[in-house]
Amino acid sequence: MSRFSALPFISVLVLLAADPTAHAQHRDLTQYVNPFIGTDRMGHTFPGAAAPFGLVQLSPDTDTVPYAVDGAYNRRVYEYCAGYQYRDPTIVGFSHTHFSGTGHSDLGDFLVTPTTGALRLNPGTADDPDAGYRSRFRHETEEAHPGYYRVRLDDYGITAELTATERTGVHRYTFEQGGEAHVILDLMHGIYNFDDKNVWTFVRVENDRLITGYRQTTGWARTRVLYFAMEFDRPFVSYGHAKYDSSVYRGFWRKFDETQNFPEMAGRHIRAHFDFHLAAGDAVQIRFAISGVSAEGALANLRAEAPGWDFRKTRAETAEKWNTQLAKVDAEFLRDDDRTVFYTALYHACLSPAVYQDVDSRYRGLDQGVHRAEGFTNYTIFSLWDTFRALHPLFTLLEPRRTGDMVASMLAHQEQSVHHMLPVWSHYANENWCMTGYHAVSVIADAAVKGAYAGDLRRALEASVATSTYAPFDGVGAYIRHGYVPQEAFPYSVSATLEYAYDDWAIAQLAWKAGDEVTAKQYLRRSASWKNHWDASIGFMRPRRGDGSWVSPFDPMDTHGQGFIEGNAWNYGLFVPHDPDGLVRTMGGERRFTAFLDSLFTMGLDDRHFANTEDITRDGIIGNYVHGNEPGHHIPYLYNWTSQPWKAGERVRMIMDRMYVNSSNGLCGNDDCGQMSAWYIFSALGFYPVAPGSDRYWFGCPLVRSAVISLENGRTFTVTATKQAKENVFVRTVLLNGKALDRRYITHAEITAGGTLEFVLSDTAH
Amino acid sequence: MSRFSALPFISVLVLLAADPTAHAQHRDLTQYVNPFIGTDRMGHTFPGAAAPFGLVQLSPDTDTVPYAVDGAYNRRVYEYCAGYQYRDPTIVGFSHTHFSGTGHSDLGDFLVTPTTGALRLNPGTADDPDAGYRSRFRHETEEAHPGYYRVRLDDYGITAELTATERTGVHRYTFEQGGEAHVILDLMHGIYNFDDKNVWTFVRVENDRLITGYRQTTGWARTRVLYFAMEFDRPFVSYGHAKYDSSVYRGFWRKFDETQNFPEMAGRHIRAHFDFHLAAGDAVQIRFAISGVSAEGALANLRAEAPGWDFRKTRAETAEKWNTQLAKVDAEFLRDDDRTVFYTALYHACLSPAVYQDVDSRYRGLDQGVHRAEGFTNYTIFSLWDTFRALHPLFTLLEPRRTGDMVASMLAHQEQSVHHMLPVWSHYANENWCMTGYHAVSVIADAAVKGAYAGDLRRALEASVATSTYAPFDGVGAYIRHGYVPQEAFPYSVSATLEYAYDDWAIAQLAWKAGDEVTAKQYLRRSASWKNHWDASIGFMRPRRGDGSWVSPFDPMDTHGQGFIEGNAWNYGLFVPHDPDGLVRTMGGERRFTAFLDSLFTMGLDDRHFANTEDITRDGIIGNYVHGNEPGHHIPYLYNWTSQPWKAGERVRMIMDRMYVNSSNGLCGNDDCGQMSAWYIFSALGFYPVAPGSDRYWFGCPLVRSAVISLENGRTFTVTATKQAKENVFVRTVLLNGKALDRRYITHAEITAGGTLEFVLSDTAH
Repeated sequence: MSRFSALPFISVLVLLAADPTAHAQHRDLTQYVNPFIGTDRMGHTFPGAAAPFGLVQLSPDTDTVPYAVDGAYNRRVYEYCAGYQYRDPTIVGFSHTHFSGTGHSDLGDFLVTPTTGALRLNPGTADDPDAGYRSRFRHETEEAHPGYYRVRLDDYGITAELTATERTGVHRYTFEQGGEAHVILDLMHGIYNFDDKNVWTFVRVENDRLITGYRQTTGWARTRVLYFAMEFDRPFVSYGHAKYDSSVYRGFWRKFDETQNFPEMAGRHIRAHFDFHLAAGDAVQIRFAISGVSAEGALANLRAEAPGWDFRKTRAETAEKWNTQLAKVDAEFLRDDDRTVFYTALYHACLSPAVYQDVDSRYRGLDQGVHRAEGFTNYTIFSLWDTFRALHPLFTLLEPRRTGDMVASMLAHQEQSVHHMLPVWSHYANENWCMTGYHAVSVIADAAVKGAYAGDLRRALEASVATSTYAPFDGVGAYIRHGYVPQEAFPYSVSATLEYAYDDWAIAQLAWKAGDEVTAKQYLRRSASWKNHWDASIGFMRPRRGDGSWVSPFDPMDTHGQGFIEGNAWNYGLFVPHDPDGLVRTMGGERRFTAFLDSLFTMGLDDRHFANTEDITRDGIIGNYVHGNEPGHHIPYLYNWTSQPWKAGERVRMIMDRMYVNSSNGLCGNDDCGQMSAWYIFSALGFYPVAPGSDRYWFGCPLVRSAVISLENGRTFTVTATKQAKENVFVRTVLLNGKALDRRYITHAEITAGGTLEFVLSDTAH
Repeated sequence: MSRFSALPFISVLVLLAADPTAHAQHRDLTQYVNPFIGTDRMGHTFPGAAAPFGLVQLSPDTDTVPYAVDGAYNRRVYEYCAGYQYRDPTIVGFSHTHFSGTGHSDLGDFLVTPTTGALRLNPGTADDPDAGYRSRFRHETEEAHPGYYRVRLDDYGITAELTATERTGVHRYTFEQGGEAHVILDLMHGIYNFDDKNVWTFVRVENDRLITGYRQTTGWARTRVLYFAMEFDRPFVSYGHAKYDSSVYRGFWRKFDETQNFPEMAGRHIRAHFDFHLAAGDAVQIRFAISGVSAEGALANLRAEAPGWDFRKTRAETAEKWNTQLAKVDAEFLRDDDRTVFYTALYHACLSPAVYQDVDSRYRGLDQGVHRAEGFTNYTIFSLWDTFRALHPLFTLLEPRRTGDMVASMLAHQEQSVHHMLPVWSHYANENWCMTGYHAVSVIADAAVKGAYAGDLRRALEASVATSTYAPFDGVGAYIRHGYVPQEAFPYSVSATLEYAYDDWAIAQLAWKAGDEVTAKQYLRRSASWKNHWDASIGFMRPRRGDGSWVSPFDPMDTHGQGFIEGNAWNYGLFVPHDPDGLVRTMGGERRFTAFLDSLFTMGLDDRHFANTEDITRDGIIGNYVHGNEPGHHIPYLYNWTSQPWKAGERVRMIMDRMYVNSSNGLCGNDDCGQMSAWYIFSALGFYPVAPGSDRYWFGCPLVRSAVISLENGRTFTVTATKQAKENVFVRTVLLNGKALDRRYITHAEITAGGTLEFVLSDTAH
């Protein structure tokens, strides 16, 4: 439900312009988004232009570094997961695809850069930008809003403006000086570039304004192809390309000069240029559409989505889409910065998964074949180890229809998978297998339990069972045999067992919902497997071998080589989100459990625990609790299973206060396709889905003064915080529709029924 | 019209078996085909299995040599244009695509090799076959017929049998010994392999019998992809692959062992293996289908074309297709060897162009997009500098429907061409630009004039005009401005001008047919351009510069650097097929012209003229006349424009006798996709299309005793040679339907009307 849906957008803008005090329903929420949050250091976000869930994410890349140097992994490449680092002094150009917040990367396709003067096809370096086509820039000239980005390329006196629809990027380059100008299309550029990342590129100059082609890469996506159609609003006067590889067009047996004005280019490493003679003040516009299917598909996307040359109109339409998206939660805060952090989090949460199909519903599937999405919209970019926790539950709550499409996309993936597995970490018709678990089942179960997925539940269950029984995957076969993953079967054995156990519980929920009691009971049994890693003698989850013996030596503080991935036993050992009661019992009862949590949040960590950790900074740590990475995101909420539940709210408010800041350095770890942001959104609203697949949201302490959630069913659910103040981080009472609750959660049905949830806050726990 | 079409094939075979003296209509013509002709030295044919005009040409490859050694072209690669050299002692394996008779190459996709014992994924070398998976073989165990090939792989005691449908190869491997056996799928193997030829390969093991995937290459076809589906008739017990490149599946972050039983393989250089435990005498069958569109398309092709596992049935059906094809000319000869040479020529002539679309009519076009052939069958492999001369005219005569499809295929190519050009040398959705001229217009004009192309003639004309006016191609812009191609614009300037002039005359014929008088007249003017190269002072065609001056020094005997491609002024200078009368006048009249031809056929050539010539051997030469390459193929027939026309027949009979032999070394030059063979077929019938686009066939001297041509219109045209004998090479009289002709040609309409052409031969000219 868009609150603006009944009004033409222009009218809305006019209203806004005419009356800045207009009713909140009409306020422009995009103004509260700061796309630069997280662009410095570890956030790995980007400031460029994108539509909500759009595949085109058109953004400046400030540098590229090789993936490997002298055959060894180059740690610096990690900084450029999103192509942009705030501290950088130059912009290489504007590429059309990015991940938001990931901790490994890919993409950066189709870099476009406008230049003036003599043609240079080399990008140059940050140290010597004059050696190439890149340009210096200053943040003072930079401006970013949802769906819009602007910067001045100082070396050329060009103002670059970007906007985007779902599948089409729109560029407007305004040249201060007249004369010779070029637009470079760099098909070698990419994020996480290694020597052989480019597999092939193919370019056709269809006429003096239109170019089509594709780029095929390997890497994180092993076999990936992306097609494009690029159109200028004025004819170029000449064009050409240079090739930086040994691939020879053997047909060019004494024929054409391939490099100049030859309309077909192909090879591994190509940079093309299109040349103009301009007058001072001239603007050159480009529409650049992409497709996973074909160049023809890209051109159809372009024609459908950006039919004219009205940059302002495209920008305004995309801004309106964002406003509609952001307006799903109309929240008020004490502090403007909190509002900005909140709406930026909501913005970042809605950048992925991305629509991955052409306007005619065709898309490239995991089997590399072309399929048509029948009855759903196909999405890609599933960073599931991260996003099953809060991002997908956020979508299940705010937009069940889109959630149903995402589930259908995962089921299509499973159908096309030669492993018959649901996605693990999937992007652009590829499975990259990153991280542990088979958390797609959590997303599906959550969507099924909450009614967001209305498709065939038996089919969803079949896909989930197939995924959870694929023996060669990460010790699953041994897990089924032993009831846990032996360390020799998989080095991240405890992480795997704990996550499989939770995932199996989610499958059980799905099975109940699908009416399959046998499978439900079977998976409930599997869901207790986490207990097999509990070493009561040391009081920690611990890896063991297939013969049952414990792995020694064992250090519960160490994040490496101890059976955990990107975490240690202190944090990761608490990952039993589906059975905190059982966990409390196993860990020795409520008092010992509470003491454990207290220790976690207050103990000191020495530097050696960060020496080899990529994903988080010291800012992302409270005691030994690590918020900058995902495995512990539910931990503060575990206080709800203790006799001191107010500590949940206290810790959550501390985390929100310290680890989410309105600044380019405002994220304490990778945003991870929106999971860090989704944690914040739930937490700011006062509740969190500790175990997706359950219908319960557990209380923390809200940051909002009030928030109106507009549900797809037409109802609204309002959260209010009485006595909201910086120091009032303790929840004293919670009232649902005016009635005090004697429990520490609300259910999904209570939210979707509409109503009001009132938190009464205090600066003391009692 | 198939004379067998009313009878089920099995019945025909039974008839044949039961009664070897059965009526000629029922005889098995495939028995007269010797697929080994031309497999030694320069013929560049292959002995494997193919259906008529089938895309799958499944044949043994006896060796592979690198395209380049130390960065320099490796002349030995030329020997392996078809993958097979008769003298070789080993077979590497059986690949699914080949060119027949080309002088540059590509393809060799999807090599399959059965082995026993320990797995070896290296092909080994001819010198040391035991180092790899290749096997020794002996010609005594080899057998080849249209659509069938058999050999024993001596190193393994495996009898390999191959057959094929249009898009599917069928293998049957019979193992003499039981035990460990492997089938290797070598995706690195290819013909004309250079370092980076493989762009990408992708393989999915769908289940324990079915594999799908693709191979993407660059090279002669710059951007080429071919998909496959491979199915075994029994499950393999294990499988795996090795990768010989640095491309890393970066998703394989501590996960599966990619090399063993992992169902998705990808990379640049891959060899896969499928493992069996067999009993002695076991046979393993494989169906292997290809598609230019998708793996799904390949699988659909497989299911449609080879639905069962009855090898004999597929073999018999393909043999029947060949018999139908060969029966279009039912010819009798004095000598069995001549009959074999003739039917082998007809067999070779029907190997290409090849059907290039899936069973659902979809195909990959020149724009790399997927198209559907609407109302026609799409073909690929157009070696037009060769085949416009006699091969396409042969098709125009024998199968106008297929000719219409080929023209439609060319027009689709032109529509998809970013250059808006008809094919020059095109294969598998690529233009390789090989050789000179834009001879597609000749094929189209010939088809239009003779009624084989029934489509939109205006559209055909438009495509032809667009092709002939694309200025950047091989000096065309300068040709239009100057009336000839200046040497500085294109180094093969005289060849180009002469061919453009003929092609322009062909366009004029098409324009007349299309009713466009203005264009017809314009192109008739262009067709006289050949005259601009005549240097009367030396009596030769000669290159000139843009200022009109002659290029000096000039040697009319030299085949290099003199403005001619693969020929010299003596031979190539006679290429004015559309205006021999004008040529005779220009060259000083009939007596001087006759003397010139006589000199050509009787003068000596010293060795230096062959030192740098790839395409022909000394066997392909009579005097200075070169039959082993195409530019002179019409030359013997030019005697028809002299007062000694009998010399045409005398020379033609000499060429047929000396240069076409029933032996593996039986072709004196590259068969060039059937052009050498088509020359023979026409010549053996007694007439030849000197200028395709004209309706006239000029007389030589027939080799047949008689021949019945079954036309698609249901009529038959019979050629008889009275007093046929080895020494009777002079035509004394020609009678059409019993009436003596006072001219040296018959027209297309006279043939298609049906009737009898009788040549009365003699051993003397007068």
